[in-house]
Amino acid sequence: MSVCSKFEVAWVVIKQELLDHFNGEGMPKDAAEWYERNLDYNVLGGKLYRGMSVVDTVEILKGRALTSDEYMKAAVLGWSVELLQACFLVADDIMDNSITRHGQSCWYRVPQVGHIAINDSFMLESAIYFLLKKHFRSESYYVDLLELFHETTYQTEMGQLIDQLTAPVDKVDLSTFSSKRHSLIVIYKTAYYSLYLPVALAMHMCGVPAAYTIDSAHIQPYGTAKSILIPLGEYFQIQDDFLDFSGSPEQIGKVGTDILDNKCSWCINTALELASSKQRMVLDENYGRKDSAAEGRVKVVFEEVGLREIYRVYEEGVYAEKTLKREVFRSFLNKVYKREK
Amino acid sequence: MSVCSKFEVAWVVIKQELLDHFNGEGMPKDAAEWYERNLDYNVLGGKLYRGMSVVDTVEILKGRALTSDEYMKAAVLGWSVELLQACFLVADDIMDNSITRHGQSCWYRVPQVGHIAINDSFMLESAIYFLLKKHFRSESYYVDLLELFHETTYQTEMGQLIDQLTAPVDKVDLSTFSSKRHSLIVIYKTAYYSLYLPVALAMHMCGVPAAYTIDSAHIQPYGTAKSILIPLGEYFQIQDDFLDFSGSPEQIGKVGTDILDNKCSWCINTALELASSKQRMVLDENYGRKDSAAEGRVKVVFEEVGLREIYRVYEEGVYAEKTLKREVFRSFLNKVYKREK
Repeated sequence: MSVCSKFEVAWVVIKQELLDHFNGEGMPKDAAEWYERNLDYNVLGGKLYRGMSVVDTVEILKGRALTSDEYMKAAVLGWSVELLQACFLVADDIMDNSITRHGQSCWYRVPQVGHIAINDSFMLESAIYFLLKKHFRSESYYVDLLELFHETTYQTEMGQLIDQLTAPVDKVDLSTFSSKRHSLIVIYKTAYYSLYLPVALAMHMCGVPAAYTIDSAHIQPYGTAKSILIPLGEYFQIQDDFLDFSGSPEQIGKVGTDILDNKCSWCINTALELASSKQRMVLDENYGRKDSAAEGRVKVVFEEVGLREIYRVYEEGVYAEKTLKREVFRSFLNKVYKREK
Repeated sequence: MSVCSKFEVAWVVIKQELLDHFNGEGMPKDAAEWYERNLDYNVLGGKLYRGMSVVDTVEILKGRALTSDEYMKAAVLGWSVELLQACFLVADDIMDNSITRHGQSCWYRVPQVGHIAINDSFMLESAIYFLLKKHFRSESYYVDLLELFHETTYQTEMGQLIDQLTAPVDKVDLSTFSSKRHSLIVIYKTAYYSLYLPVALAMHMCGVPAAYTIDSAHIQPYGTAKSILIPLGEYFQIQDDFLDFSGSPEQIGKVGTDILDNKCSWCINTALELASSKQRMVLDENYGRKDSAAEGRVKVVFEEVGLREIYRVYEEGVYAEKTLKREVFRSFLNKVYKREK
């Protein structure tokens, strides 16, 4: 059984727990069917990287295979991350007027759903806290899990707010863009919940404390994890943004639409910093127009300012830093691991 | 200083705590201004009954005036209830295509807001958990507060789901209505968060335990409170529904629109149970049409089936029961109070 399918088997159990509780509250049959469809449609279909990384991290920290009880607990945390992401994506798709998600129609565009999707998004969030209570109530780190989900949710909402204010759906205005804002959006809207949350949940489950001293070094494991994972999340997003512009459809599995969609991406922010006033005018006039000729003119400026070379140099720097950080992280994990023995 | 204005002064402090934290996360100025406007526009403007009832209940349970520290804590819980309600109303108004709320335009209809209101609604919810952590983290009942908010939120979302499925915005179909469904909607969508939540929060703050035995009687104070407050919430809603039909604009401060709006109200559900097949046809053809002649024909049926008399008898029964329950509740409070001494 592959890692993925074992994780997916846990979902069957978890989904049933949610539905049993829902029915136990005396909810009518049509509502239960709706809730099940909400869960199936929105929680599955993604790549499950975030959820599975909780299980993987617990295994790394424990340094051994998990017992079936441990696996189930780690899987509940993993699926809670997936529920949180589903909650965000259902709501974001409405805010962005998106058409498709994971190769299917966005939930709010499914016939009969419409704005009920807003309440469905909230219900995906509430499911998390039901599951945490059911599986972790008696654990000493229960309140840490709750606070971590609360804080990560809030951070993601802050990121979504500045994203919406920076690149409104119906208005193109590059003067609100900047690399600093791009970085803030990426960190708050994506990196915290995608990178830091899964690892920090696993650390709590493995009993990693907030701070400790070893060999007279003061260690703040969660701060260390954050300092490594947040820049990594930034790099993933910059790579994503760059490939949206430079990657072939075969390479990235889709046709990039960031320019057409007025996205506040690394590419446009970097180009804005380097553009001459003539190039700036081309960007102002053509970015975010639903028109492939305008998109082409933006791409010409991206080439002129040397975006490919800048990305190459940036990526080299990241790799050098990653090698360094890998060592830091390895020694960090070693310390955590040793401490557990 | 009236009770209300003292409670409102606490809001100034609480709002500043939220904004200070938001700014402390490095959020840009335009986002902070947006968040402040979200808080002002959506949290204020209501009657604050729910929030103030937390403070009142804490005072009753303590049996004395509160110290300023106790007042602030009770006010934080009260404003958290108001934040939760604001979160629900902002989202519900989008789902219901509503036009006005508290005598002003609904938030999503304010220029430039639109669907960003969805994220704003989520942020109002997240504010609650920030405040609870800040003010209650070191209290033994902190986790009880968190779970109570989680569970009440989930219950309200369940109520909103069945409400949306029962009376869809764009489709009139009375065959989905029933008094049982009406009761379920009222309890889950309104009674839990409006009646039970404020009292239960106050009870936690006053150290009321989950269960205890006194004079060899086994007491479950939260269950007792629920058994009294949920039917009370149902009564308030039925009264509201009846007045929407029968009250004059002077009496209820607005023109009733439940019939035009296809609301699953006590009136239509009661009428459906009593209607002859001819009257049923009139209801099917005229309920939920945006047309005052159709509304008039529905009202004729409401009179024909004797809705006024049925309500009068129902209300008499409620009063008799209330007198009984008042005694139960008084003895309940006395026990809690004695136990505190």
